[in-house]
Amino acid sequence: MTASVPSRAYAELNEMSLAAYIAETAELQAFFAGGDDRLEITEIGDGNLNLVFHVRRGRRALAIKQALPYARVSGGSRTLTRERIHFEKLALEQAARRTPEHVPAIHHFNDELSLLCLEFLEPHIIMRKGMMAGTVYPHFAEHMARFLAEGFFATSDLALKAAEKRLMAARFSRNTELCEITERLIFTEPYTDSPHNRWTSPALDEAVAAIRADTALKLAVSRLKLRFMTCSEALLHGDLHTGSIMLTETDTRVIDPEFAVFGPMGFDIGVLVGNLLLSFFAQYAYEREPDERHAYRQWILATIEALWDGFAARFAELWLKEQTGDAFPASLFDTRDARAGLEDECRLCLERVLADTMGFAGAEMIRRVTGRAQNIDLESIADPARKGHSEGLALELARHMVTAGGGIGSMKELTSLAHRVVRPR
Amino acid sequence: MTASVPSRAYAELNEMSLAAYIAETAELQAFFAGGDDRLEITEIGDGNLNLVFHVRRGRRALAIKQALPYARVSGGSRTLTRERIHFEKLALEQAARRTPEHVPAIHHFNDELSLLCLEFLEPHIIMRKGMMAGTVYPHFAEHMARFLAEGFFATSDLALKAAEKRLMAARFSRNTELCEITERLIFTEPYTDSPHNRWTSPALDEAVAAIRADTALKLAVSRLKLRFMTCSEALLHGDLHTGSIMLTETDTRVIDPEFAVFGPMGFDIGVLVGNLLLSFFAQYAYEREPDERHAYRQWILATIEALWDGFAARFAELWLKEQTGDAFPASLFDTRDARAGLEDECRLCLERVLADTMGFAGAEMIRRVTGRAQNIDLESIADPARKGHSEGLALELARHMVTAGGGIGSMKELTSLAHRVVRPR
Repeated sequence: MTASVPSRAYAELNEMSLAAYIAETAELQAFFAGGDDRLEITEIGDGNLNLVFHVRRGRRALAIKQALPYARVSGGSRTLTRERIHFEKLALEQAARRTPEHVPAIHHFNDELSLLCLEFLEPHIIMRKGMMAGTVYPHFAEHMARFLAEGFFATSDLALKAAEKRLMAARFSRNTELCEITERLIFTEPYTDSPHNRWTSPALDEAVAAIRADTALKLAVSRLKLRFMTCSEALLHGDLHTGSIMLTETDTRVIDPEFAVFGPMGFDIGVLVGNLLLSFFAQYAYEREPDERHAYRQWILATIEALWDGFAARFAELWLKEQTGDAFPASLFDTRDARAGLEDECRLCLERVLADTMGFAGAEMIRRVTGRAQNIDLESIADPARKGHSEGLALELARHMVTAGGGIGSMKELTSLAHRVVRPR
Repeated sequence: MTASVPSRAYAELNEMSLAAYIAETAELQAFFAGGDDRLEITEIGDGNLNLVFHVRRGRRALAIKQALPYARVSGGSRTLTRERIHFEKLALEQAARRTPEHVPAIHHFNDELSLLCLEFLEPHIIMRKGMMAGTVYPHFAEHMARFLAEGFFATSDLALKAAEKRLMAARFSRNTELCEITERLIFTEPYTDSPHNRWTSPALDEAVAAIRADTALKLAVSRLKLRFMTCSEALLHGDLHTGSIMLTETDTRVIDPEFAVFGPMGFDIGVLVGNLLLSFFAQYAYEREPDERHAYRQWILATIEALWDGFAARFAELWLKEQTGDAFPASLFDTRDARAGLEDECRLCLERVLADTMGFAGAEMIRRVTGRAQNIDLESIADPARKGHSEGLALELARHMVTAGGGIGSMKELTSLAHRVVRPR
């Protein structure tokens, strides 16, 4: 493969230079070969960081991402190493080992050009947008539970030898720039008076002031930050919100793992649960008549429960049946009594992951409502009163989630709390 | 400096080739310059892994270590990368930034030859041997408390920016071979019927069988192992037993950090406390008449308490006064109320470190009594009955320490337990 890749110095691609690159790259030529159609290239990137081209010839299409040496959202003012796309590729490759059905396939990669050519997902849409439209995804919970359990297990000390795990974690530790964004945007900035923070004013002014004055909350969120920085439990996606998932009613794919790093499993699950809850609260503001979205809200909460239950069940199954790593080595637990002990231990471990999940989910909700990077599902609410109302409810629940520690003992309890926090406007 | 170092391919040195190396290395020539004395070189290594030469000219002396491409103790059969001496050098340099008074100075390093030239410590002796002789070290607790607190703080997220910390931890993560030895010899092998395990038989046969059948113990020790593998709290020495400390009554130096890796702080403190407790129990067997070593045993227990208290006090002081890192950022805790909250948080954090310490200390004690690598302070006891008695007491306490979790709430409580476990022979 290497021989067929032209080695060039890095340059920002445009439609024209990308066409030339494709023409001289055997692997891409082969992919697009056949038929009389023209090659169509359109830049479609709407993310914060990269260029993304939709490249199509007839029925064959790729999404081609190029990392820029700066954050796209900054207009070039904030430099960022292009190495992030290398970590994205590594993370996609790793996920494909266990759940190739839940990530886009990689068709070509050029490290020199920071260029990643991926399966173009169609007719998939970004989950966040599907949820805004009220689309039910009946297989989402099952698919994501599997994606998470398999991915975490495979990169944990339960599956890997310690040396292999240490080296893999060290490799991703070089992804410091994107980790720093997470550490700052989720765990720090929303709790300061950074000029980058935004919130619905005046509706949330009081709530935001209260958050910044809440020592217990700031201690709890700092504890979560330290856990994110020091706990290398498994390989994380690192930014698993509903904008990082593309799906149809039957197919679910996780994209954009450029924030990948080893960390606590509850971080990824928490970010996802937090974004599902934000959508839950946003649904109230979408209603043109009372309870129009009632059934959809119920689906969101049921999905959160099913996601966790499916994850926990599959993770436990993998631990108890496929343990090959250096943690809890099978050689120490080969009697019936010991196997029973191991099952208890697995439950305890999942309780800790659940406690992490609650905390990280709450932190994600707070930063999406009061910090720098906001979500379109809330941003799109035109009426500030309705927007502020939904966001205020989300903040109330989120603060409790961050400070409760292990106090919310199950996902069922969390979804009940989400219901209970809702008051008429 | 680089220019003055002859670059040679690796070869195992002997007295003669080392003399030639010194003669052509300006840095070493300069160190030994002056006077009419002959250069005397003697191989003095008594460790498990490396060659160690004592090189002297008149009053100037160095300890020159060379890593072998195998574990010395294995007679060459167990290969081991020489890179370990590189990690030893990095760890000594890091320690010297905060507590140069507690490590030997580095005079020369040659990565090619895996050669590390260190200050020759005299009249220091290995602490383990001093304790066998019943020597009181009145400043040991204070010195080690400072060494540990400064070293841990400086390499934690409380002092470092997250990116710097991640990269430093990643660097040490490459020390996988020595980590694997720790993971196997401390947390795994003693709980299996490995042919490498040794214990005082028949005195401990029953106790050893009980350990291997104790599911709760094996789960607890596996939990500790997972914590060692996944928690990158601070840079550890990695093998901080009383054979890794050289001292006089007024000077304390930590040597041999070749097992250095990022891990939970309680690991280092625990290994040290575990070895102090093993010496405590060994003292009974040294007595030629009852209570001959009573005062010395009291000193050991008081030292354990003072070591912890001094560490905890200094670590808290550093956190509250010198926090510059990304964890618990000062910007979030700038009110009086928030500062008070931070003090509580610091106490909570130290409680967790204490719980880790208890567990790791217990695991170290069990492996030194029932595993592959035994301690001379116990091994030197000639009478198997006396030896088994001391070891049995140590095992009894150790099992409780490993399984108690946070159940032993203070060092005072631990030392009381150590007293209480003692029964007449």
